[in-house]
Parts: sequence; structure tokens; C-alpha cells
Amino acid sequence: MAEIKYEIKENIGVLSESNKGWTKELNLISWNGREAKFDIREWDPEHIKMGKGLTLSKEELKKLRDILNNMDL
Amino acid sequence: MAEIKYEIKENIGVLSESNKGWTKELNLISWNGREAKFDIREWDPEHIKMGKGLTLSKEELKKLRDILNNMDL
Repeated sequence: MAEIKYEIKENIGVLSESNKGWTKELNLISWNGREAKFDIREWDPEHIKMGKGLTLSKEELKKLRDILNNMDL
Repeated sequence: MAEIKYEIKENIGVLSESNKGWTKELNLISWNGREAKFDIREWDPEHIKMGKGLTLSKEELKKLRDILNNMDL
């Protein structure tokens, strides 16, 4: 697999932590030097290994926020 | 790859739609007959093909909602 360069620009928040210490986080990340995007995925405690995840635009985050605020959680 | 069985229990909301008609959605999905989980991923218009995504527990969604409400989006 080709090397992926990334830079975590901002740790925004932690959604959960697993027994092994991996955390599911919302971050602002620049992938391969491109403009930073919002990103939800799991990370090891050192933020070196990552799990599968999802990148989201600001507009998608806004929409998600509105959807979540209308849910009975 | 082994076949994955899934059942979309509830379409909760659409975050965005791509030029090709794929939508990024929040759904409640049962994977392989197990208890349904919240799930964010992209789907084709027929909800047959799916992209990589993320499953989230109710607690994680609550945490995410609170984080998003504290952001200046």
C-alpha cells in the first residue's frame, strides 16, 4: 500500500475509548498535504496506527449536527 | 471476501449527495443479524453498493452531538 502522509491539525474531541486504549475521535486532518478535513476514526494511544474511518466536510458536519439534535438520544 | 448480510432498520438522515447520486447517510443497521448499530457511510442510489464507513454506539452519537454543538460550524 502506498504511504499516506497525514497531519492532525486539531484534536476536536473523543467519542469513546476501547479496552485496548484505542480512542474514536473527531479530528481535523490534512491528508497528503491537502486541505484539512474533518475525520472520525479510531486511533492507538500514540496516534500512529489508525482504523478505518470517515472524512467529512464542514457542511456534512453541520447536517449531522442538525440530524443528531432532532434525534431522541 | 465473505458475504456480509445487513438490514437497514431506519434511514435517519442524509448528510450529502455526490455528483454520481451516492449519498452519505446516517442509518440504523443490523449487520449479520446482530443488534442494530448507528452507521455513517456512503450508499449508491439503490442502497446495494456501499462505501467504507463507521459504526457508532448510541453513547458515541451522544458524545458526537455534544462535541458538534460546542463547535463553531
